[in-house]
Amino acid sequence: MSEVPHLVAVLGRGVVSPDDPVVTADDLGLTRGDGCFDSARVVTDPSGTAQIVDLDDHLDRLAASAGALDIAIPPHDAWRSLVSEAVAAWSTPGEAVLKLMLTRGREWRPAGPTALLTITHRAPSPTPTGPPRTITAVTLTRGHPSDAFTDAPWLLGGVKTLSYVVNAAATREAKRRGADDVIFTTTDGFALDGPTSGLLLARGRTLLSTPTGGTGILESLTVAAIMDAARADGFETRFELIPVEDLYAADALWLVSSGRGPVLITTLDARPLRTDTALATAIARYAGF
Amino acid sequence: MSEVPHLVAVLGRGVVSPDDPVVTADDLGLTRGDGCFDSARVVTDPSGTAQIVDLDDHLDRLAASAGALDIAIPPHDAWRSLVSEAVAAWSTPGEAVLKLMLTRGREWRPAGPTALLTITHRAPSPTPTGPPRTITAVTLTRGHPSDAFTDAPWLLGGVKTLSYVVNAAATREAKRRGADDVIFTTTDGFALDGPTSGLLLARGRTLLSTPTGGTGILESLTVAAIMDAARADGFETRFELIPVEDLYAADALWLVSSGRGPVLITTLDARPLRTDTALATAIARYAGF
Repeated sequence: MSEVPHLVAVLGRGVVSPDDPVVTADDLGLTRGDGCFDSARVVTDPSGTAQIVDLDDHLDRLAASAGALDIAIPPHDAWRSLVSEAVAAWSTPGEAVLKLMLTRGREWRPAGPTALLTITHRAPSPTPTGPPRTITAVTLTRGHPSDAFTDAPWLLGGVKTLSYVVNAAATREAKRRGADDVIFTTTDGFALDGPTSGLLLARGRTLLSTPTGGTGILESLTVAAIMDAARADGFETRFELIPVEDLYAADALWLVSSGRGPVLITTLDARPLRTDTALATAIARYAGF
Repeated sequence: MSEVPHLVAVLGRGVVSPDDPVVTADDLGLTRGDGCFDSARVVTDPSGTAQIVDLDDHLDRLAASAGALDIAIPPHDAWRSLVSEAVAAWSTPGEAVLKLMLTRGREWRPAGPTALLTITHRAPSPTPTGPPRTITAVTLTRGHPSDAFTDAPWLLGGVKTLSYVVNAAATREAKRRGADDVIFTTTDGFALDGPTSGLLLARGRTLLSTPTGGTGILESLTVAAIMDAARADGFETRFELIPVEDLYAADALWLVSSGRGPVLITTLDARPLRTDTALATAIARYAGF
């Protein structure tokens, strides 16, 4: 078996073997999914020099998640040192994902939060002139209305927690239905986001995505970056509730994440969608892919 | 610091030090809360002989959770052997909790599910003639309607997953409001259960609890045991949707779990509730406490 390159580093220990256990049985990240994470893109050139894309933005979002959970996050400098140590040990050319994880720490013998990271290779460097990457998707209910998270901070809307079991189960349900990924929907008929991605919709020269807040969805750094670049290129951009039926009528529809960038959806619930290769190429460029 | 007695055992390794890390950074139980657990009561007599209450029922429920998650659970015999080994190493008289945990296992180097358990001391043996244990509680929305989980198995209703971060956050919110615990409610105005407990309500000689299914709540083994014993004692018992306003008008209201048994709620949202000490004593007896 040829293994995907993978690296693990733990705050206070540094880089360790990926086969070394790093978390005790009483760690609240394990026992209750009580913690948060953030993922950033890693680009490594042919000489083996790795760079993390927008690390500070991801550290800021991790700190926001930790704040919502009342977890005392180690300072950015401690994370940056750990990331530097990891990056120095990483030399696989191409695309990889850095995952920063923070748990509430041990319950039985409290010793502060547990902080660790992984870097995992995902693909060779992308070819900017290649065709846009595409997936198929299905819609699945998330079981709540579009305003469920208003005035209910304990529901942890917008927090990238380690409790992602429903996201994983929904992705398995998509595979069972013969699709690659999921767009979650509300009980009142609006689109949310994907299990590990933001949603982006084109309608003419307007780009739309779902608002945070009452919807509980997570702010997508990559959607924001695309919208910034698109506005400079003459697009209008808006965050607003998108009725599910509008998804099928979109001029183009993407799921968007830091690791894989924008991925064009070709069919939704087995219904073919419009795709626009020129637009998809522009959106990928706006995202830095 | 005098530490609470605590024991850890891992399938394939046996009893280990609680300070030994047991889970790798790529374990899906850690990275996504992708796994399940179950908790059983441990009663240890003054001579140090420990017994697990209804172990087979908890193994069955764990297997049901694993089935809903498509995780291939080790056979009951493997769990029983691990539990035996743990119990042989456990000798603290009084009450403790056995927590069985199962994760989907490693993502980077797949090697089957991760199975482990902990035993944690919680209290001296209860005094049957003592006053009933009481708590205060608040109602908090769970953000979904009472039928949210119908026909949506990917939402994992009724599955005791490791993704319990909202349960933990709701309990912290209760403390912020000066209360001990939580009764979750639906957006359409019904009571659900507690973050780590089932709900039981007395109305005259009728005992009520919330139905599983569309509500997403977990079947409570202790509520079921109480209802079985209560019916033999002449009570009527029913599972039905309970409007939130009915909670305040109850003749008595409990949160119920395997570890701590039934605990009487004395105030809900700072409003005093009726309590009935004779009834509470009977209910505790029905639960085996």
